[in-house]
Formats: sequence, structure tokens, C-alpha cells
Amino acid sequence: MGRIYNFSSGPAVMPLPVLEKARDELVDFESSGMSIMEMSHRDKIFDAVIKTAEANLRKLMGISDDYAVLFLPGGASQQFAMIPLNLLLPGTSADHVDTGSWATKAIKEARLVGKVNVIWDGKSTNYMSAPDPSDLHFTPGAAYAHICSNETIGGVRFVDFPKCDAPLIADMSSEILSRAVNVNDFGMIYAGAQKNLGPSGMAVVILRKDLAERCPDTVNHFFRYKTHMPEPSLYNTPNTWAVYVFKLITDWLLESGGVAAMQKRNEAKAAELYGVLDASPFWKPCAVKKYRSIMNVTWRLSSEELEAKFVKEAKAAGFDGLKGHRSVGGLRASIYNAFPAEGVTALAGFMRDFEKKNG
Amino acid sequence: MGRIYNFSSGPAVMPLPVLEKARDELVDFESSGMSIMEMSHRDKIFDAVIKTAEANLRKLMGISDDYAVLFLPGGASQQFAMIPLNLLLPGTSADHVDTGSWATKAIKEARLVGKVNVIWDGKSTNYMSAPDPSDLHFTPGAAYAHICSNETIGGVRFVDFPKCDAPLIADMSSEILSRAVNVNDFGMIYAGAQKNLGPSGMAVVILRKDLAERCPDTVNHFFRYKTHMPEPSLYNTPNTWAVYVFKLITDWLLESGGVAAMQKRNEAKAAELYGVLDASPFWKPCAVKKYRSIMNVTWRLSSEELEAKFVKEAKAAGFDGLKGHRSVGGLRASIYNAFPAEGVTALAGFMRDFEKKNG
Repeated sequence: MGRIYNFSSGPAVMPLPVLEKARDELVDFESSGMSIMEMSHRDKIFDAVIKTAEANLRKLMGISDDYAVLFLPGGASQQFAMIPLNLLLPGTSADHVDTGSWATKAIKEARLVGKVNVIWDGKSTNYMSAPDPSDLHFTPGAAYAHICSNETIGGVRFVDFPKCDAPLIADMSSEILSRAVNVNDFGMIYAGAQKNLGPSGMAVVILRKDLAERCPDTVNHFFRYKTHMPEPSLYNTPNTWAVYVFKLITDWLLESGGVAAMQKRNEAKAAELYGVLDASPFWKPCAVKKYRSIMNVTWRLSSEELEAKFVKEAKAAGFDGLKGHRSVGGLRASIYNAFPAEGVTALAGFMRDFEKKNG
Repeated sequence: MGRIYNFSSGPAVMPLPVLEKARDELVDFESSGMSIMEMSHRDKIFDAVIKTAEANLRKLMGISDDYAVLFLPGGASQQFAMIPLNLLLPGTSADHVDTGSWATKAIKEARLVGKVNVIWDGKSTNYMSAPDPSDLHFTPGAAYAHICSNETIGGVRFVDFPKCDAPLIADMSSEILSRAVNVNDFGMIYAGAQKNLGPSGMAVVILRKDLAERCPDTVNHFFRYKTHMPEPSLYNTPNTWAVYVFKLITDWLLESGGVAAMQKRNEAKAAELYGVLDASPFWKPCAVKKYRSIMNVTWRLSSEELEAKFVKEAKAAGFDGLKGHRSVGGLRASIYNAFPAEGVTALAGFMRDFEKKNG
């Protein structure tokens, strides 16, 4: 079988040139006589890899020296716990915006550490909407405000980011590097790697350095951000394979024109799919129009039977991963940076055919 | 350059057939039209991979259904924190044996959670020894007893494991699957993957299921073992690449005769190097003879200059990673399961030549 169009929400499609390079140098990395997986994380060759990985991200996002860039274990779910442990100090509280499943998980972990103010809740829209900055009323003196900038399950995103006095912390797992953001507007940005950044098992954390100092001395060393900062990400053995693939992906992004070019491409890809969904009542797009994600496009059909038929026939035609999240059902196309435009065009064509036959 | 002999202490050498298989199927895994790195962790194909990975380990170590097998993020260092969070309950204490750097790190994390009794300390031998079971006097009522069964830095190991009333917890990062152990003698065995099990960024945890229930409700969900047990290792997206490579390595171990065959091979490899070290006062082996590791062989020469010369000439001759840990200096050969016997024989020959020229 040839390469299929992989709409999986994560782990997700990677650029083919990245996969081919990883394959070609897997057994012998840079004539070292060993695989990158077999190499000490303190080897000079790996040191160049991790330093380039960090430099690439700084370049792509315009990250200043006021921020640390860390490669930490475990994805966003581990960060949901590490953030309050480091920053939700006794006597303070944290503002949280609840836009869906991932935001809710972050709230659940923060509540085990301290007081949480849910300042916006998307439940009444079944998490198919997101707030405008003007909808948000922050708590004076809050330790931080937390948002999930793009929810993969509902397929909604923040269009504009709020301003607040407290440091703004954003889980950008499903949209990091897909559109321009001003890092200086955030106290922390983090992302599980497995959507836009590489393989699973690693989180990328961009943290304003002064915030790391707030961590109470009662927190385990391993879970303190400041533990991982002096020799960035080398306090323990990092996920060297994920750092390496992240480096290849960010190399590819830089060669492909960076975030601005990606954003343009992503907006065009999303517009093509939403164009199909909006053209006929056969399709029932899920997210409130204004807050539609450009990474995860969600829709329903008139019945679950028809949705199952769609998934089955799409898969047979080489379009995989179109089933919606098991918690909500329906259909979803995840079209991250590495998802090719021609795959979107091909799916749009398949959808129009499907409508003709079943409409 | 051809494949070198890689004596790195971790990340470390892997079996060449495993690397070649990972390379050959990297771009298109099992004709799925995508890489294993691009595949949802809930895909049927990946589900078979993770289930086989677990089944392989159960078979290799004889793990009963009373134990959970979990693939968790972050290596042993994260477990140093998770163990006391889950098991060091208020009002109890934990017995720790301090055999060196890794045991000390575990103590440091446990002390942030509760009371630690250091019941044996190798400091007086500069951590070049380990205890006999009869040297250990456990604290009645302790929540658990913690050991590091093999210390990579000193190159020492437990020859026999102690029996105690409390659950015995062992960090086996640097010797898991290298020799036979009776899992039923332990409450928990864990290992960072990057020495004997695969790439870095993952810990393998073997935990007696009833112990998981002890975790206080104040601990973050993500750091509770019981969170990761109902759908083993799928509470969040696991490190799918590391699980996959672990599966390949355990396939290779099963094909190679399992733990018994590895132990025999490892003992012969270690005996060959210790034979060189014991044959002449030119070599100064570090570890107390009785407790010598069969995974990490450590020695000194008469001066640091001569040690540097040894490392340099060895590297030029295709033997890499022989420098001792930066905290202690000297020389070290890590010869894990995947390290080939012919590489040990070649190093022994190089050492005898080096002695002739410099003795």
C-alpha cells in the first residue's frame, strides 16, 4: 500500500522528507558508527542536535532570552499537573477557561493543588464554542490564567488571545507553530509533541524564566521547572529520539517558510474543507463558525449510520483517521502543518462524491 | 565509518537487527501507509504492538497477573518522585539503601514527601560496594524498602536481594533483563528504558496491583499509578516510538534465548574484562570484588593523564564511551545485553596491548 492521507488527531502525520531522513540515518547517525538512539545525551553530536532544536524553535516563534525552552517528558497531561505544582502557590488561585476536554483535564489537576476559578465555561454550547477576550473577566491577584488555545475534540480555537495581569498560560498542543503568536503575551506556552512537533512522549515548554522561581520547595525536584533549566533539559536523560525528530521537523518548517507560510497554507486547507461543509445542509459542521479551528475540522451527518458509512468508505479510499473523538462521535479531519494540501483537496472531492451518492 | 563498539552507559547500544528493522519499517509500518510515529495510540495496529510489548516482558520475567506492567514517561528520575507520592503515606516512613548516585537521588525525592530511613550507606567505601542481605536491618512498619540494584557509576550491584516485610522496590534501570530475578520477591521493579530496554524517555514499571490503591487522593491524577492501570499506559498518549522499540528489543531477547541465555552471556563478557583488570597491577578495578556489576565495569589507571590517553586511543580504535561518569572520573565499560561478546574480546585485546606499551 502507498502512503495514505492520515487525518489522525495525534500522534499525527509528519512530513515525508522528515520520515525519510530519520530512516536513512537511523542506524548510523552522522557517521558516528551508532544510532542517535544509542548515543549518550552528553555526546557532542547530540548536544548539537538539542541546541539546534531549541534554536529552531526560538527562531520560528521569536522567543527571547527571557524565556526558557524545555523538552520535558510526558506530553501536555503531565504539564496539567506540573503547572499548578510550580505556580499555584498557597493563598492564591488560578483562573481557568473551560473550552472542552483538555481544558477540563487541566482544571481537574489544578484543583488538587489549589483554588481554581473557572471564569468561562463552554458546557452550554457542548464545548462547540470559545470565548472572545471581552467575555473573560479575570480574578484580581490570580497566580495565572490558563487556556487551551485549540480544542481538538470540539474543533474550536481562540481567535484572539486575552490580555490579563496574571501570566497567561496556554496549552497549544494542537496548534503550536500553525499560526503566528506573540510569545511575549504569555507567561508560558506548552505543547505535547505528537500533533505538530514530532512523536509522542515529550512536551515542549516555553516558560518565562522568572516564573520558574516561584515553585515551592516542597515540590519534588523532578517536577520543578527550575530543576530542568540550568543545563536545559539535561537534568535527566531526555527523550533523545523525540528531540531529534523535533529538530528535523523544525528544520523542515524553516525550509518551508516558517510560521507565516504555514499559517497561510493552514488557513487555505481549512477554508477548503469548511467550504464543502457550508455548501449544503447534508453536512452539519459542529463548531460555532467564528471559533472554528484551522487544525481540527469537525462535523456530523444526519445519522450515526451514515457517519459510519462515511468513515468506512473514506478509509477504503485512502483517507484514515476521520472518526470523531470517542467522547463525542461524529467526524473529524485533523489537518496539522504536515498534512498536505493535496490531501485536503482529495478529501473535499471524496466528500462531494459522497454527498451525491447519499444526499 | 563502520559500526563502532559503543560502551556508553545510557542511552546505550541496541541490537543491530532491531535498528535495521526499525529503519526498514519507519516510513510505512506494516503496510498501514504511515509511520508508527504517525499512528494513533488507539489504532488497532498500535494496540497489538503495546500488548505484545507487555506480553513479551511478562514472559521474559515471569510476571504474574498480580502485577501491572506500565510504560510511563520520563525514566527512573521521574519514578524517584512518583514512588513516594504513591506509597510514602503520612505517618509512615520508607527504608532506603544508599549505594550511590542513583540511590541518593531517590532518597532526595522521597525526603520531600515523607520520612526516610537510610538503613545502609556506601559512602565510606566511596560507593564502591553494596550490602549483603544480612547487612540490612529494616524498620518495622516501613511503607516500603527501596534499593538501586545496580549502580552504573560505581559499577556495583546487589548479588543477592534482601527479604523484608515491607514491599521491596528496586530501580533496575541498568540491569533489568540481564539476569534472572523473582518478581514475586518485589513490590515494584522499575527501569528507565535507555540502557537495556530501548530509547530514552520512558520508564517501565512492574507494580504489584494492590500497592497502587494506597495512593492518597491529594496526589495529582497523572502521578498516580492507578490512573495508568485500567487501560494500561493509555490514560494519556504514551511514548509510542519507545514502546515500539521496546517491543522489538524484547522480541530479540525472546529469540536469543531469554533472560537465562543473556545472563550466561553477560557473566562471560564481564568475566573477560575483570580477568584483564585482575591480571596486573597496571589496572586498578574500582568496585569491591564481591559486588562487581556485570553491566558496568569500572577501573582506574595510575594517573588521569594515562586515563585520558586510554580513552583517546580507544576511541581512535573504534571503542567509544569508555570515560567514567563525570562525577567520579576513571574508566568504565558498560556492556548491556545488546553489547556483543566480540566487542568485549576486542576491548580486552586492546587493553593488553595498551598495557604492553604503557606498563
